[in-house]
Amino acid sequence: MGEPLEQVLRVRYGECDLQGIVFNAHYLNYFDTSITELWRSACGSYQAMLDRGVDIVLAEATLRFRKPARFDEQLTLAVAVTHIGNTSVITRHTASRDGELLAECELRHVLIDRVTVEKTPLPDWLRAGLEPFTVARPAPAD
Amino acid sequence: MGEPLEQVLRVRYGECDLQGIVFNAHYLNYFDTSITELWRSACGSYQAMLDRGVDIVLAEATLRFRKPARFDEQLTLAVAVTHIGNTSVITRHTASRDGELLAECELRHVLIDRVTVEKTPLPDWLRAGLEPFTVARPAPAD
Amino acid sequence: MGEPLEQVLRVRYGECDLQGIVFNAHYLNYFDTSITELWRSACGSYQAMLDRGVDIVLAEATLRFRKPARFDEQLTLAVAVTHIGNTSVITRHTASRDGELLAECELRHVLIDRVTVEKTPLPDWLRAGLEPFTVARPAPAD
Amino acid sequence: MGEPLEQVLRVRYGECDLQGIVFNAHYLNYFDTSITELWRSACGSYQAMLDRGVDIVLAEATLRFRKPARFDEQLTLAVAVTHIGNTSVITRHTASRDGELLAECELRHVLIDRVTVEKTPLPDWLRAGLEPFTVARPAPAD
Repeated sequence: MGEPLEQVLRVRYGECDLQGIVFNAHYLNYFDTSITELWRSACGSYQAMLDRGVDIVLAEATLRFRKPARFDEQLTLAVAVTHIGNTSVITRHTASRDGELLAECELRHVLIDRVTVEKTPLPDWLRAGLEPFTVARPAPAD
Repeated sequence: MGEPLEQVLRVRYGECDLQGIVFNAHYLNYFDTSITELWRSACGSYQAMLDRGVDIVLAEATLRFRKPARFDEQLTLAVAVTHIGNTSVITRHTASRDGELLAECELRHVLIDRVTVEKTPLPDWLRAGLEPFTVARPAPAD
Repeated sequence: MGEPLEQVLRVRYGECDLQGIVFNAHYLNYFDTSITELWRSACGSYQAMLDRGVDIVLAEATLRFRKPARFDEQLTLAVAVTHIGNTSVITRHTASRDGELLAECELRHVLIDRVTVEKTPLPDWLRAGLEPFTVARPAPAD
Repeated sequence: MGEPLEQVLRVRYGECDLQGIVFNAHYLNYFDTSITELWRSACGSYQAMLDRGVDIVLAEATLRFRKPARFDEQLTLAVAVTHIGNTSVITRHTASRDGELLAECELRHVLIDRVTVEKTPLPDWLRAGLEPFTVARPAPAD
């Protein structure tokens, strides 16, 4: 089995709201940067995938906010692939601070052909590239 | 039974990404403006709720992206309350264009006491205010 | 002489920061929506300009923040053209609330050819379209 | 004389627009992260300043966009203090890529008392902390 890919991200001032915490919409932004890093590790870069004629679009997102993140904190973002279908990839994301889980997320991306903009099967090179980051899908938390 | 609350929102240039479509994170922003409008209708305004000593925090979000929205399009955002628990409210959101469903979302907010920052039961005035917008929860779409 | 074009925009929750006020970067977003509306009035739409083979890019921005705007407030955004050069357009923007000036901004956009991505002279149809919104440039405020 | 403070920032997917380049409003966000880093170096952290009872608000911003930045590029953000007044600080910012200047910016922040929310003189500890990053103000570029 593979292992999650981690990066560290610092919360920006403009990402925090009146409640003094990271505004929820920014988490989708954060987890998208994890997708960028995952693609870098899997196939060189996101652009390298585009150059081969395919792109990904987000089909579904599920987020759970456990504890708030605050301005200037350094968050550890982890991403792992939990399912590779014929035309889709499911990733599981966490944002944590000093080992404490703050938010978790599941994203389902669909692969599309850049010319037809239609769903297309995951090419073998992407499938192989994602393998080192593929883990067993955890049982859904309550 | 109640009815959804609707508003119209125009997609901004800076909300569209390299794919030429609204970047996914902005949908959480859009649906948050629906919460603001819902609160305005339910209890005067979001601020009016704060003035009474309670606030809401987002605990869970589930989004499904059906079709892309594009720059300068006018989206109809609809929100309805589908569940009122002891300390939480679940809302269901849709974004559509000319009657075509583009994205849907479910948000679960938790009510907190502004002083203790702990969960607190939904006050009756908020419960009553949300009633006109409460609908039966739809069976989960496939 | 022409007259400024006005629109009303409501401040979103996620646009306010820890200081309880609209975070500065969002003003460039706000004023960009004024550009979209100006183009709609001047030549049908921003897209209509693109369809004719030209685009605009921002070259310079100057902003002055006079008083803070806050969550849920309705701002009046006004935009007027203050200078039309050979390949550039300067617009002056204000954001106000109940007649009180909150922020002002000057933007200089450059016209480019969409194919060559090089500067190109302002076509007559755009020049004519912007005329109803062209005012004398104010003396620089202190 | 002091020296500019530098950091490296990677452009996020959601920060790029339909033109394939970083949307202009995000530069104010980028340069704000430079302010955060400058304050960390000058007095421990932005929060450390707040804890001492003062805050800063942005009064003016001037930006020049020279060349576009694109998705996934690593930008070097440099900030230097060019003027310290009685109650204000002017910083000069650049964003560059591989030594090539992409954008430059001047920000004028005003110091305020957190309780009265009125202008207040720069305390000596902040003045001293900013000194290592203070440079001669460059002649205005044409």
